[in-house]
Amino acid sequence: MQTKQVEKPKAVVLLSGGVDSATAAAIAKSEGYELYAISFSYGQRHSKELECARRVGEALGVARHVIMAFDLRTWGGSALTEDLEIPLDRDKSDMQADVPITYVPARNTIFLSFALGYAEVIGAETIVIGANQIDFSGYPDCREEYLKAFERMANLATKAAKVDGRRFRIHAPLLHLTKAEIIKRGMEHGVDYSLTWSCYQGGETPCGRCDSCILRAEGFREAGIPDPLEG
Amino acid sequence: MQTKQVEKPKAVVLLSGGVDSATAAAIAKSEGYELYAISFSYGQRHSKELECARRVGEALGVARHVIMAFDLRTWGGSALTEDLEIPLDRDKSDMQADVPITYVPARNTIFLSFALGYAEVIGAETIVIGANQIDFSGYPDCREEYLKAFERMANLATKAAKVDGRRFRIHAPLLHLTKAEIIKRGMEHGVDYSLTWSCYQGGETPCGRCDSCILRAEGFREAGIPDPLEG
Repeated sequence: MQTKQVEKPKAVVLLSGGVDSATAAAIAKSEGYELYAISFSYGQRHSKELECARRVGEALGVARHVIMAFDLRTWGGSALTEDLEIPLDRDKSDMQADVPITYVPARNTIFLSFALGYAEVIGAETIVIGANQIDFSGYPDCREEYLKAFERMANLATKAAKVDGRRFRIHAPLLHLTKAEIIKRGMEHGVDYSLTWSCYQGGETPCGRCDSCILRAEGFREAGIPDPLEG
Repeated sequence: MQTKQVEKPKAVVLLSGGVDSATAAAIAKSEGYELYAISFSYGQRHSKELECARRVGEALGVARHVIMAFDLRTWGGSALTEDLEIPLDRDKSDMQADVPITYVPARNTIFLSFALGYAEVIGAETIVIGANQIDFSGYPDCREEYLKAFERMANLATKAAKVDGRRFRIHAPLLHLTKAEIIKRGMEHGVDYSLTWSCYQGGETPCGRCDSCILRAEGFREAGIPDPLEG
């Protein structure tokens, strides 16, 4: 009996080292994609998240993991890329009422643009992003209408689309999930959250007080699962 | 009599060191914008064009000129970012029939994304690009429908648009001009084309045979103006 080798479709996955991108990548893997990871060293406050991204990628068995480096401190404009205070102890309604100063101007657009170039070169049509518009910090570039507009632009931007008729898809499997649902889905797919890092600050242990720590803690609590980074 | 200081609106201008971006920037300056230039060191074949971009910016009196560096040789996929042969001696109809291997995957999308972040931080609403869809190499990301789709996406991507109601505009004043018309417009605005560089190869003098050299030569010839780089 002959077995036929079917090549898996490739997907470029954005890995930040956090809970959401690890979960989105695990879901894409379960859907049958071969994963090509990309992470960004963009002048963020600490490199801990990049080390976590690398370990998450390794655990997922990605085919390749590239780190694209550039420096958004060139113009700053965010508490993550210049020396501004990270807001602490806010509740979720505060987070979503405004766009906090941890917002990095055009960050997801820059990240997705690189992912698009990478996808075009390796022959991937799918770009996986852990964007979520339920339990998030009010960032404009995590919303569905934004991602749809990016996808539409991407399909006019490339040779792959113009000449070869390839269609790019921005795949955001977490978009409408709560943080607790995300964590439950990740557990089903075997994500090891001890490898992830959410805290905006680069301390030895998570600060527990920034938006990202607060959303993470609420998610684990609501999911009824202990956070492996705690305790 | 009191004179009122009116602050000029800011524009981010993409400067490549070539004819088109220098001309687009000069037009934007004549329209009353204060220019903030951005150029990219992306792993291209030679750095000559960056030195030219710097000199063009200086001649235009830009308020600031940033060079954003990253390395697209990480994944290659273009004759400008890996060791592939540059096509030579093609005529214009050949160029437009296909997308040549000098196309860099998602390059304008990456460039415009950085420009968007920069614009958001400095309070600019206008991003100036020398894209042209008449005398060009068939690149998908120089077409009007692409630029419109980018603009639409940009207006969903940012805090400036979401919270402050700012509207970003991709301003491509050369989009429907021939190369000869571009050069004539540039001359009217005092562009010094001896500062520019078009050749894809980084030799002492332009090769005269790559698409970019051929389009430039035809433009100057049709405009009836001698190219200051010649002779």
